[in-house]
Amino acid sequence: MGPGPINADPRVLRAMSAQLVGQYDPAMTAYMNETMELYREVFQTANEQTLLIDGTSRAGIEAAIVSLVAPGDRVLVPIFGRFGHLLREIAERVGAEVHVIEREWGTVFTEAEIERAILATKPKLLAVVHGDTSTTVAQPLEGLGELCEKHGVLFYTDVTASLGGNTFAADALGLDAVTAGLQKCLGGPSGSAPATFSPRAVEVIDSRKSIEAGIAGSADEIHATRIRSNYFDLAMIFDYWGEKRLNHHTEATSMLYGARECARLLVDEGITAAVERHRLHGAAMLAGVQGLGLATFGDLSVKMNNVVAVVIPDGVNGDAVRGELLGDFGIEIGTSFGPLHGKVWRIGTMGYNARTDAVLTTLASLEQVLRRQGAVVTAGGGVGAAYDVYEDAR
Amino acid sequence: MGPGPINADPRVLRAMSAQLVGQYDPAMTAYMNETMELYREVFQTANEQTLLIDGTSRAGIEAAIVSLVAPGDRVLVPIFGRFGHLLREIAERVGAEVHVIEREWGTVFTEAEIERAILATKPKLLAVVHGDTSTTVAQPLEGLGELCEKHGVLFYTDVTASLGGNTFAADALGLDAVTAGLQKCLGGPSGSAPATFSPRAVEVIDSRKSIEAGIAGSADEIHATRIRSNYFDLAMIFDYWGEKRLNHHTEATSMLYGARECARLLVDEGITAAVERHRLHGAAMLAGVQGLGLATFGDLSVKMNNVVAVVIPDGVNGDAVRGELLGDFGIEIGTSFGPLHGKVWRIGTMGYNARTDAVLTTLASLEQVLRRQGAVVTAGGGVGAAYDVYEDAR
Repeated sequence: MGPGPINADPRVLRAMSAQLVGQYDPAMTAYMNETMELYREVFQTANEQTLLIDGTSRAGIEAAIVSLVAPGDRVLVPIFGRFGHLLREIAERVGAEVHVIEREWGTVFTEAEIERAILATKPKLLAVVHGDTSTTVAQPLEGLGELCEKHGVLFYTDVTASLGGNTFAADALGLDAVTAGLQKCLGGPSGSAPATFSPRAVEVIDSRKSIEAGIAGSADEIHATRIRSNYFDLAMIFDYWGEKRLNHHTEATSMLYGARECARLLVDEGITAAVERHRLHGAAMLAGVQGLGLATFGDLSVKMNNVVAVVIPDGVNGDAVRGELLGDFGIEIGTSFGPLHGKVWRIGTMGYNARTDAVLTTLASLEQVLRRQGAVVTAGGGVGAAYDVYEDAR
Repeated sequence: MGPGPINADPRVLRAMSAQLVGQYDPAMTAYMNETMELYREVFQTANEQTLLIDGTSRAGIEAAIVSLVAPGDRVLVPIFGRFGHLLREIAERVGAEVHVIEREWGTVFTEAEIERAILATKPKLLAVVHGDTSTTVAQPLEGLGELCEKHGVLFYTDVTASLGGNTFAADALGLDAVTAGLQKCLGGPSGSAPATFSPRAVEVIDSRKSIEAGIAGSADEIHATRIRSNYFDLAMIFDYWGEKRLNHHTEATSMLYGARECARLLVDEGITAAVERHRLHGAAMLAGVQGLGLATFGDLSVKMNNVVAVVIPDGVNGDAVRGELLGDFGIEIGTSFGPLHGKVWRIGTMGYNARTDAVLTTLASLEQVLRRQGAVVTAGGGVGAAYDVYEDAR
């Protein structure tokens, strides 16, 4: 019940135990095409280039940034949590000129703040995390696509923490690049990064490929714009997933089976229904921790459905509570990073764990552990408040 | 029965279907430590830094090169097949000054040729593929470690195609960096890259970390030596796998389960016994294709145990043979790349497919398909010759 990775859906694990097939077996290329189609629905996009990057979610982030951004390009990163810092760092390593704006953890930016920064820095790329699990809040993306369109900026977001559990629609938001991971609301293991790229992004990426092929005059020019990674060269990855089927990496077959099954389950449930399920169980967990008398961290009006940050009460040893919950009750909740370290726990209700029994057993167990650790808690207050949410929804 | 990816060992797939645990769950960190220990035995090394890179085998290659090589560093790549070209390309993208020597596909370099190139180019890193599946031959690595030691060169090899099926010992060969993949003789799926780094390599990598932290004077200096990738920054990956457990990527849990099981099975069988198994079934397959009257490609004295390149007979449609074998007999054999495209098939006997029944059914089926496609083949010649090899070994 942490902020992810979480228990995988058993159906995903079963799909991953299927025997391998060769990478150009018609069955395999059909799976690849099906996976592309399924993720178009998950991302709510018509983008042809909707595929998997073979690595964890940060592999998806690095692939997007290294392929879109050439050394010296300006990148704007609004930072409101740990993963904004990651976007900044990756863009810096790619050789970009990175500009950041920062907000206190637990808050998000207004559209006006982001527009001011765009005007001040004139970036090629706006790179913003959607939901930052480190703080539990999600940056509203509405309006940013129009801003980017207006100012000629490419618009990229990472939705690893939010996808499948919160309303999101890549095309409606005007996004050029979106990356994700399986280990949160998608209910799979870390190790495959679904991603989608708009025709405009594809044009930028492919232009770097054609320069590589020898169009530019001098070696320096080629050197300056060539994508700095082979593994994350999206132009090559597009040609591998596309009709050309040009060999690149050897697709990670079992992870593809898993990623495909994650999307299939989500599409089968219905994206809207899945988001509503996350909303319901997230609301029950939030009411539950409040019902136990615990305070929460962060602006609740922009909290993601699938995770809540709970302030560790004064005098309570946060690690001892986590240790007893895991060791004796078999329930894991999360610690925190950076400025929140030692101050809050993060409790997830996502993917396969967005279930009534998971919420109620967590709240029941947390109440017992907190009491044993000397905290004052309302007896039955957590489970009772969660039940109220469930009954209201019936 | 292609050159990989091949059928995974069912025990590996079963291990991968285990439920996930959190990345700092004591069970998970224990699995990580066990995996390190198991791969020390597989690589035959005492290197502390023996771990998994979360991606396919080329992710391991890029992690090694981008972490060891700073822009402007000289790298020497002896190229004798497709994957030598890949090492060259990755080193170029990292900004290295790359020097290559090339040999005709199907042959390998002498130690003297490599020493001459080292003397001529004075590289920081010698990067050479061990077994190149594109040609089926393996570059002998004996003596190269001493050469590198003598000339102050870091010595790196990729053993994706050879590890587990051919004699290999990282420390005895004097290697500083070795990368691999699961999808060949290790009997697992693509998607995790076991790797090991000598103390000397770790020192080089860690020195780039400390510069990153602000030791260098100017921003340019920092920029010049900082590792150009976050995802492949081995200094950070060492701190994630080591005692510090500093959070980096979210370890790909299911792939780790799979990689651990691949190594466990190999260690359980015994590395020497596993190599001997590959030798035996590789010899049977070679004798079998020769017994059918087919010619082979490449220098057989340096052929890997686990794959053979078979010349497509005149007048036979290579793709039609492969199509009928796959479609009607359920047996996949490989096509080829580059100069060998359309000229040879590649047939593997590796990992879970290094088995008597797999060899005999392949030879029996190939005989039938070849006959139906108009080739002149010796009736029973393939299976008979393979049987002779097996009987000699009894």
